[in-house]
Amino acid sequence: MPSTKPPSGMRDYLPETVAKRRYVVAKIESVFQHYGFLPLETPAIENLTTLLGKYGEEGDQLLFRLLHRGDKLSRALEKESTEAGDLAELGLRYDLTVPLARVVAQYGNSLPRFFKRYQIQPVWRADRPAKGRFREFYQCDVDLTGTTSLLAEAEVMNAVSDALLDLGFTNFTIALNHRVLLRTMIEAAAIAPNLEGPALIAIDKLDKIGVDGVQEELIQRGIVQESAQRLLGMTTSTALADNGSILESLRGQLSQPEAQQALDDLETLLSLTSHAPAGSKIRLAPALARGLSYYTGPIFEVVSTDFSGSLGGGGRYDNLVGMFSNKQVPAVGFSLGLERILLLIEERDLFPPLELAAQVMLCILSHTPLPPVVGLASRLRQAGITVDVYPEQSKLGRQISAADSLQIPYVLIIGPDEVKRQTYTLKNLATGEQQTLAEDALIAALRS
Amino acid sequence: MPSTKPPSGMRDYLPETVAKRRYVVAKIESVFQHYGFLPLETPAIENLTTLLGKYGEEGDQLLFRLLHRGDKLSRALEKESTEAGDLAELGLRYDLTVPLARVVAQYGNSLPRFFKRYQIQPVWRADRPAKGRFREFYQCDVDLTGTTSLLAEAEVMNAVSDALLDLGFTNFTIALNHRVLLRTMIEAAAIAPNLEGPALIAIDKLDKIGVDGVQEELIQRGIVQESAQRLLGMTTSTALADNGSILESLRGQLSQPEAQQALDDLETLLSLTSHAPAGSKIRLAPALARGLSYYTGPIFEVVSTDFSGSLGGGGRYDNLVGMFSNKQVPAVGFSLGLERILLLIEERDLFPPLELAAQVMLCILSHTPLPPVVGLASRLRQAGITVDVYPEQSKLGRQISAADSLQIPYVLIIGPDEVKRQTYTLKNLATGEQQTLAEDALIAALRS
Repeated sequence: MPSTKPPSGMRDYLPETVAKRRYVVAKIESVFQHYGFLPLETPAIENLTTLLGKYGEEGDQLLFRLLHRGDKLSRALEKESTEAGDLAELGLRYDLTVPLARVVAQYGNSLPRFFKRYQIQPVWRADRPAKGRFREFYQCDVDLTGTTSLLAEAEVMNAVSDALLDLGFTNFTIALNHRVLLRTMIEAAAIAPNLEGPALIAIDKLDKIGVDGVQEELIQRGIVQESAQRLLGMTTSTALADNGSILESLRGQLSQPEAQQALDDLETLLSLTSHAPAGSKIRLAPALARGLSYYTGPIFEVVSTDFSGSLGGGGRYDNLVGMFSNKQVPAVGFSLGLERILLLIEERDLFPPLELAAQVMLCILSHTPLPPVVGLASRLRQAGITVDVYPEQSKLGRQISAADSLQIPYVLIIGPDEVKRQTYTLKNLATGEQQTLAEDALIAALRS
Repeated sequence: MPSTKPPSGMRDYLPETVAKRRYVVAKIESVFQHYGFLPLETPAIENLTTLLGKYGEEGDQLLFRLLHRGDKLSRALEKESTEAGDLAELGLRYDLTVPLARVVAQYGNSLPRFFKRYQIQPVWRADRPAKGRFREFYQCDVDLTGTTSLLAEAEVMNAVSDALLDLGFTNFTIALNHRVLLRTMIEAAAIAPNLEGPALIAIDKLDKIGVDGVQEELIQRGIVQESAQRLLGMTTSTALADNGSILESLRGQLSQPEAQQALDDLETLLSLTSHAPAGSKIRLAPALARGLSYYTGPIFEVVSTDFSGSLGGGGRYDNLVGMFSNKQVPAVGFSLGLERILLLIEERDLFPPLELAAQVMLCILSHTPLPPVVGLASRLRQAGITVDVYPEQSKLGRQISAADSLQIPYVLIIGPDEVKRQTYTLKNLATGEQQTLAEDALIAALRS
């Protein structure tokens, strides 16, 4: 007999969980819509040519690939030495950003010049499953394509802040950094350009392995100790300072014009959001690196002392659309991870009561003629009432206790006499109170 | 440069399409909820052991399988002769019924005894793509598990009828047949039990290839001409008769007790739905076979002279959960195909106006200080107004025409003076009318 568990890293969402997920998604969607973002959906399956080379080497390895079928598979297996690349040309979506870039490249002319889109869909990564880490999980993305204006960064940071505030989170900050600033810090630390990638990967682990750990890793990756220390000095010395002091300190340490420009960008972003939800949340974080390779400008991440890891992140990626098109289209986006948000709301008990149960269950006795019961159910539903019908002519007590365990507040008891008289006994299961009502009065009672 | 089209048989849903899809899904969901069905979601990826052997041989071949990775893949490729079965143990969901059966087997004790669930999610089939046939498509399923009561069939048929009526369809019928009746007809036609499967497959094509085509196919499949003619006689002679006459005719032709019981079931279903939405829609269809192998009792399909093929179908499958568990759990379900419904609503122009656009776009002049604009946008959004902000300080005409092409009805023109005075010019793009308003009045105007 096959296992009935979902595959490793995957989950079944039973009704109560679906209700919670929908509550959160609806809140986030509503905020994104109020910001003028439009909904997009893309297929779960993408060409591997779309996905490969966008997420770094580790990302490529975590892609789920779809096995060829039929002749293609036979031909691949007949080869003298079959390789993985011969066996698949399709894969599952790994994030929502690369599909957006593909969509902008494909439909550019029919999309608004400044395309504000949101997308809330599952993605799949063949990561090792762990507590809170799944192989199928939902991302909630907002992106704005078509402009290099920092108003775009302000929009996505404000939208995400508003969404989190709306869900009841207050104690979070948006860590903000700039890829160009990181590059100039690496340069100022006299680290060779070819070691920039490795240096970023090491710096990104600061939260997890601390200053000493990062320094060790930098040295292991071929960076001399003095450079490692200088880089760590610039990225971490200001960890506790306020945003203004961080800007000032870095302006003093970094003389390159690109560094000054990046610092100007950050200062502008602080100013642009100063009267808006993100304003009080932004915290400059010179050590923030963000794993994905496609970022080119400001980068951000939602962090909090209330949880380890982040609730989401994003940044500017001005070259990604250009990987799919001859036309470069600048873009910026922010992605919230649904699973961790759900976990935190659950932990803090921030869910409101979510009604799933029907309002009334129709209970039938052993000699009740059934067609009129089905007809009554139908008319009550037409009147907007949520109605369950007990499907078997069991003992009344059993039917009432079924309604009770489904949290249905009322039962309607329908025996042969009730059908004949067309009046029905409505019982409130919480109070035990009973009323005998004709259909109109019944509808009125259940509506109120 | 990689292709920017979605893979063959897959689609991108741009905002206007997403809005249409959501409109339909919300209608269907609302009806299902009014019937007391609870939402379930399951992962896109299932173990192949869950999927294989449930959909017939053709179904197995249409499964998308996920290629092994890492060591598992290496080991498979190192084998002397690698076979498809060595390369995958996971596949994509092919329908929503088999995952439900797995869920009922897995969580049986924590689910209601009569589990009424709906599920609206995509499924994947590696079918040859054609007009209206996709490799990723959505199904909208309602199922009721735990009872053999025909009230369950009545519930799902009424729910589907109500959903279609609610969407504006009127001219459809629910073709109704019974698997046991089909079996007894095959038996009465003196067709050997081992040819029952092939006979069903042939009969199922009646719509497509006609009586002569089916007869030819039956004979090709090893059924003698006389039997083929008798079977076709029983299944098709009553094609134009009313439900009562069909029942009477079949009662006369079929003497087996199971046949009489199946005819009783059908008669009961006609009676149970007589005062409900499905009642006037049901049309007995002795030739209806339904492809899937797991049906055991009544089967149904939504058909119409307005379209070829069907909008959905379903039936009773009392043995499927037992394939995952030592406990047999009877079940019945009905599945609507979202894509064809959308196509028909589009063709008939039944979509209401679906609002996607923001209510107002904030337009900024070249010397407008931006932080107060971002702040104003934020306060308007907090007040429930959907606000877009033009992200660049371009010419006003360009901004207004962008708002216009996004179908945003109002623009708010914000120059340096407006910021200073904190009054703003609201322009109605349809009438050209302008008003200069302070923030409170602006919010009131946009709300009304």
